[in-house]
Amino acid sequence: MTGIITTGTGGYERLEYLDRLPVPEPGPEEVLVKVLAAGVNNTEMNTRLGWYSATIDVGTNSHSEVTSDDFEGIKDGGWHNKTPFPLIQGTDCCGQVVRVGLLANPELLRKRVLVRPCVAVIDDKGGPKSCWMGSDFNGSFAQFVVIPQTEVFPISSEWTDEELGVIPCAYGTAENMCIRANVKSGDTVLIPGGSGGVATAAIKLCKLRGATVISITNESKRDYVAEMGADIVYEGRYGGSGWKSMAADVQNNVNVVIDNVGGEGFLDLINCLKADGSYVCSGAINGPVVSLDLRTMYLRDLKLIGTTTWEKSVFPNLISYIQQGFVVPPRVTVFPLNKIAEAQKLFMAKEYVGKLALIPPPTTIF
Amino acid sequence: MTGIITTGTGGYERLEYLDRLPVPEPGPEEVLVKVLAAGVNNTEMNTRLGWYSATIDVGTNSHSEVTSDDFEGIKDGGWHNKTPFPLIQGTDCCGQVVRVGLLANPELLRKRVLVRPCVAVIDDKGGPKSCWMGSDFNGSFAQFVVIPQTEVFPISSEWTDEELGVIPCAYGTAENMCIRANVKSGDTVLIPGGSGGVATAAIKLCKLRGATVISITNESKRDYVAEMGADIVYEGRYGGSGWKSMAADVQNNVNVVIDNVGGEGFLDLINCLKADGSYVCSGAINGPVVSLDLRTMYLRDLKLIGTTTWEKSVFPNLISYIQQGFVVPPRVTVFPLNKIAEAQKLFMAKEYVGKLALIPPPTTIF
Repeated sequence: MTGIITTGTGGYERLEYLDRLPVPEPGPEEVLVKVLAAGVNNTEMNTRLGWYSATIDVGTNSHSEVTSDDFEGIKDGGWHNKTPFPLIQGTDCCGQVVRVGLLANPELLRKRVLVRPCVAVIDDKGGPKSCWMGSDFNGSFAQFVVIPQTEVFPISSEWTDEELGVIPCAYGTAENMCIRANVKSGDTVLIPGGSGGVATAAIKLCKLRGATVISITNESKRDYVAEMGADIVYEGRYGGSGWKSMAADVQNNVNVVIDNVGGEGFLDLINCLKADGSYVCSGAINGPVVSLDLRTMYLRDLKLIGTTTWEKSVFPNLISYIQQGFVVPPRVTVFPLNKIAEAQKLFMAKEYVGKLALIPPPTTIF
Repeated sequence: MTGIITTGTGGYERLEYLDRLPVPEPGPEEVLVKVLAAGVNNTEMNTRLGWYSATIDVGTNSHSEVTSDDFEGIKDGGWHNKTPFPLIQGTDCCGQVVRVGLLANPELLRKRVLVRPCVAVIDDKGGPKSCWMGSDFNGSFAQFVVIPQTEVFPISSEWTDEELGVIPCAYGTAENMCIRANVKSGDTVLIPGGSGGVATAAIKLCKLRGATVISITNESKRDYVAEMGADIVYEGRYGGSGWKSMAADVQNNVNVVIDNVGGEGFLDLINCLKADGSYVCSGAINGPVVSLDLRTMYLRDLKLIGTTTWEKSVFPNLISYIQQGFVVPPRVTVFPLNKIAEAQKLFMAKEYVGKLALIPPPTTIF
């Protein structure tokens, strides 16, 4: 089959487009999925760049022009310390089940499915309770991917493959954050960096719950973020006048902050919370190491919630929202799989709004 | 009546021992309590010192030799921005109800009670959901104190007044932390600074729940902390070899950290948590401003929980534990109320183990 092999930690030159890769064999309780569309996310670049290493303290945004040399010697750059390179990345997948393992449910065959990339694992030694498709084992940047049958969810929807194919990572992460922070009707939720994939999804999923959403984004993306459903949109970034207005207006006034930005603005975000409020995060593109005043946290009964492993209800919820028409399809631009570097560069430039999907070349193997 | 008036932010010279203070009048739903014993806690010193001000970034421990001059101009040094000096402090109280307001329950009269210092308030503007006796309104460092009838809990126990009088603040805070962090049977809990009032209480309350407790304290207090119930006790403080052993042994291995220490050791404490673990704090005597790596928090699904306002079940639980004999009385040394500065100095020297209680002079007013 054809796919992208990420050969190691480093820049775009680590992405090798290869044909003649072996089609993987599903184990007894696994299925083989033909990839119809695969979304592009921050996490694929973070993993390739080794950004999860504790030796790195700058934001993902600083990495747009790096080469392999910058990452020599990083040993703990992946989710579970070390990413198993060479690896087929790809966390998002809309696909079709084309083979089922000996003990897997044959009714899955031929079904169009969304793949849940967050696979629960039992770890008694204190490690993470999940592993991830595309980070811990081969993912969807190829014509085929093997996955446990428990992780494929048949979906019946008029959405296109690429509209579905950008959903799992961003919407799953956002839904999980909403669940963990218990976002509910009547809440006011602050979502900085509102044009990002997870942030956009979070705006929609908070609105779905009946919350009021406040966001902030660059001037050029303001209309997009409002269109996504944010009730109030400030313009600018940390340090600018729009950010300062937001910090002043919203101080002490929101129930939940849903953040993937982190960095220097963290303190202002915490100060926006009401007593008893929750800050929930699943990323930190502007810088992971922040300064925290424990007094603010305890005197105001705040909760800071880190989220990676998804709650069980996350994926069934998403399937249900889509099938019932509770969310509208995202805006998607499509690239052929061999143009992955172009797609990732466009993504990293942070000028484009909406999602990007990669489409593998057609195959007649199945 | 006789009592201690704290005249403003500053050192021990701010504590004025006065007689001829008016006995306060209970409102319709309040009661007048004769103070039998009042514990000494960090919070009374923090409040007098204005340590809750965001302009202060050192630990409480740095304040043992300060004078009023060091605190000139601090406007936000209290729980709710500004402490209403002149104030009678005192967060702990074992007392006897000697008068009831017009609409208060007359059956409370003559009862020996513990006073719940954390009074729930309704705040729609995002502020704290509680106010505190001794910080936001007059407390127990006097012969009498007025309190809403909902905050007095009759107790039937053979414990002495001083044993009961040191319970509310430390044990209430610890019980609240156990509840908020959901400490349960089979958990491993790390409690640094194990000889402190809240930490000692937390050790007992975690053991009561069936958890395994790991602690660390100075060599001289090791036996005391073990006697309190800690299963494993390391010796030393942050930076020393005992701390390093603990950080290495326990890394990635505890379900909950119950912390009132903060400071430079914070990072090690976070790294001791298993994935899905909780760090809960209600103080930061070694320094409130810490560095947090958001990646650690989100990749490991950690929760950081700040606690001040008590859950409703906290105080009924404590009364029940004492009445049923589930906890043994704390070790208490008694000072007359006019020796408050000596008691606080002994407390701040951090050499003494156990609790300190102040006893007001006898009165025949009621």
